[in-house]
Amino acid sequence: MKIIFQKPALLNGLNIVLKAVSSKSTMPILECILIDAEDTNIKLTANDMELGIETTIEGNILGKGKIAINAKLFSEIIRKLPDNDVTIESDENFLLTISCEKSKLRIPGQSGEEFSYLPDIEKGSYVCLSQFTLKEVIRQTIFSIAANDVNKIMTGELFEINENTLRVVALDGHRISIRNVILKDNYPDQKVIVPGKTLNEVSKILSGDVDQDVYIFFTGNHICFEFDNTIVVSRLIEGEYFRVNQMLSDNYETKVRINKKELLGGLERSVLLVRENDNKPIVLNFEDEKLEISLNSSLGSMREDMPVQKQGKDLMIGFNPRYVIDALRVIDDEEIDLYMTNAKAPCFIKDEKGSYIYLILPVNFLPANYS
Amino acid sequence: MKIIFQKPALLNGLNIVLKAVSSKSTMPILECILIDAEDTNIKLTANDMELGIETTIEGNILGKGKIAINAKLFSEIIRKLPDNDVTIESDENFLLTISCEKSKLRIPGQSGEEFSYLPDIEKGSYVCLSQFTLKEVIRQTIFSIAANDVNKIMTGELFEINENTLRVVALDGHRISIRNVILKDNYPDQKVIVPGKTLNEVSKILSGDVDQDVYIFFTGNHICFEFDNTIVVSRLIEGEYFRVNQMLSDNYETKVRINKKELLGGLERSVLLVRENDNKPIVLNFEDEKLEISLNSSLGSMREDMPVQKQGKDLMIGFNPRYVIDALRVIDDEEIDLYMTNAKAPCFIKDEKGSYIYLILPVNFLPANYS
Repeated sequence: MKIIFQKPALLNGLNIVLKAVSSKSTMPILECILIDAEDTNIKLTANDMELGIETTIEGNILGKGKIAINAKLFSEIIRKLPDNDVTIESDENFLLTISCEKSKLRIPGQSGEEFSYLPDIEKGSYVCLSQFTLKEVIRQTIFSIAANDVNKIMTGELFEINENTLRVVALDGHRISIRNVILKDNYPDQKVIVPGKTLNEVSKILSGDVDQDVYIFFTGNHICFEFDNTIVVSRLIEGEYFRVNQMLSDNYETKVRINKKELLGGLERSVLLVRENDNKPIVLNFEDEKLEISLNSSLGSMREDMPVQKQGKDLMIGFNPRYVIDALRVIDDEEIDLYMTNAKAPCFIKDEKGSYIYLILPVNFLPANYS
Repeated sequence: MKIIFQKPALLNGLNIVLKAVSSKSTMPILECILIDAEDTNIKLTANDMELGIETTIEGNILGKGKIAINAKLFSEIIRKLPDNDVTIESDENFLLTISCEKSKLRIPGQSGEEFSYLPDIEKGSYVCLSQFTLKEVIRQTIFSIAANDVNKIMTGELFEINENTLRVVALDGHRISIRNVILKDNYPDQKVIVPGKTLNEVSKILSGDVDQDVYIFFTGNHICFEFDNTIVVSRLIEGEYFRVNQMLSDNYETKVRINKKELLGGLERSVLLVRENDNKPIVLNFEDEKLEISLNSSLGSMREDMPVQKQGKDLMIGFNPRYVIDALRVIDDEEIDLYMTNAKAPCFIKDEKGSYIYLILPVNFLPANYS
């Protein structure tokens, strides 16, 4: 195999597939990427058996062939080469020679035969949306998946398609984040659970361009994202997702409209007084047209007032401030609406057009004795 | 005590003194800064007993007093406040109230009485140089102090003044880095060993402005840096520094002029093949008007040619590539001169006007069998 690349094109391709390379593995082949130039295209592939990425890059094939090569070492070498033509050539023993200007490096590779290719995806059922929308919808929900996999289903996100709506749901037992996206077309119904890790990696590769599309294909066990010159294939999480609709409610006793930036600022200051693993609640006291937030901890105390527009009853309610901060950070609206029933029932942050719903469970609190 | 600050001025002062706050300490007072407004100025002080920093900041004193307050918590709170007036007020129990717009936070402080003030420095002997020069001279030498303190003296740098020259020396047993700076005036002779940690922190605080001066004062046990509104006082390392002049030599058998960027690029690529804690040498083979660098390791091999201007004998010599990289990264010249005698004797990288000398000891190597 002998190929000439432009360094930036090769490096760009490597940066994409590196997202699917195992960082710690007992099998050297899982730390490799496959460079495949057996056909007319040059494909780079990485596959950690959960997540696989394949991307096609520009280059001039002088000799056909393929080789598996340590991903980290190979990409670090390419990164440090001058910005010029890079030639790679492998011999019958899979020794790879990398040449650029007067520099020549040799590193041992492996036969591509042992490499696990991406599973073949039957491209039947799919949806199409912009890279921007997919990247945003991941960012706006991914923080509320569960960090550990005591409950495997909570480490993924529900992707649910119903006619022309994509609903993305993440929940961890303390909160639920829901985003609804209107698609340009109608599609057949779908309901799959996508691993959070896959979504994190896909989101890093997506350019986020409004004018570039992503096609998402569904099979029984896999989801496949196609965009630019890249294909990402991931296993799905098996099982039935939680019945989220049963947890939602349109009833409320107190509705409050509030400036998002002011509330977020106050909450961000309050968490400075909360040591990690300490679950001091922030107390929100809605009285007349005013919200007073307060927090007491071993480190100190804080209190802050802000104006609100309130409908319904006065209410005092406590939250883990970090959960409220997480939701507010991904809402772009300047003014937000909070819907609450009482100090034991969930609080909903949602907009009128139904593009988002953030449900946060309250926590018990002792009334603040800040004087 | 009651003071009104502009948030940016307070935050800027905090960022300076934070450099001298112990990160891990069993004594809470060492994690504090002192806010002192007993006089007409407002001074912030931090002192970890090795290094002390005091800075004067703008503010409006409405009530005199002083307080010691946890440095990390206080500065994180200030950072998260709106960019506006910040009022701090302490009561008789040293409870500190921080107010900004509608936000009010309270954190417990301590009496300033237990706080260790900076030692009084008798401002006799001194030198003056620009912030730019001091910051540069630290950057250009600090990498070659010893990381661990098996030999305490090696963890510091020699600051030696002789008439109008400041010589800064750092060495770790494998290499020596020397920078000579011409001062504007003549000063009395001085020879002190300054802790590397002090120089690292001072270098972070220095603006690096060519037009701003630093005054350095010397006493028997301390060094004091005065610049802008800030005073940094540090203990010196006791003992006699190594006799560096005995290690230097003007003799050589081979002198080579080489493009710095080309050599650095080759070396940076070579270290990608060297695992950490593995001491694979880079072999430099100077033959006629050409340098071939090569390295073999368990990860692979590399070879690179570059043109040189050579005087004297051909030579093959091995180095730890990281030591050569460290020196080349802080030399600004496009072309550098290497002076060597044989494969067992130190290599000198130095300029003709004597502003820098980098001595690097060679290492044993097996001739590369790169084919």
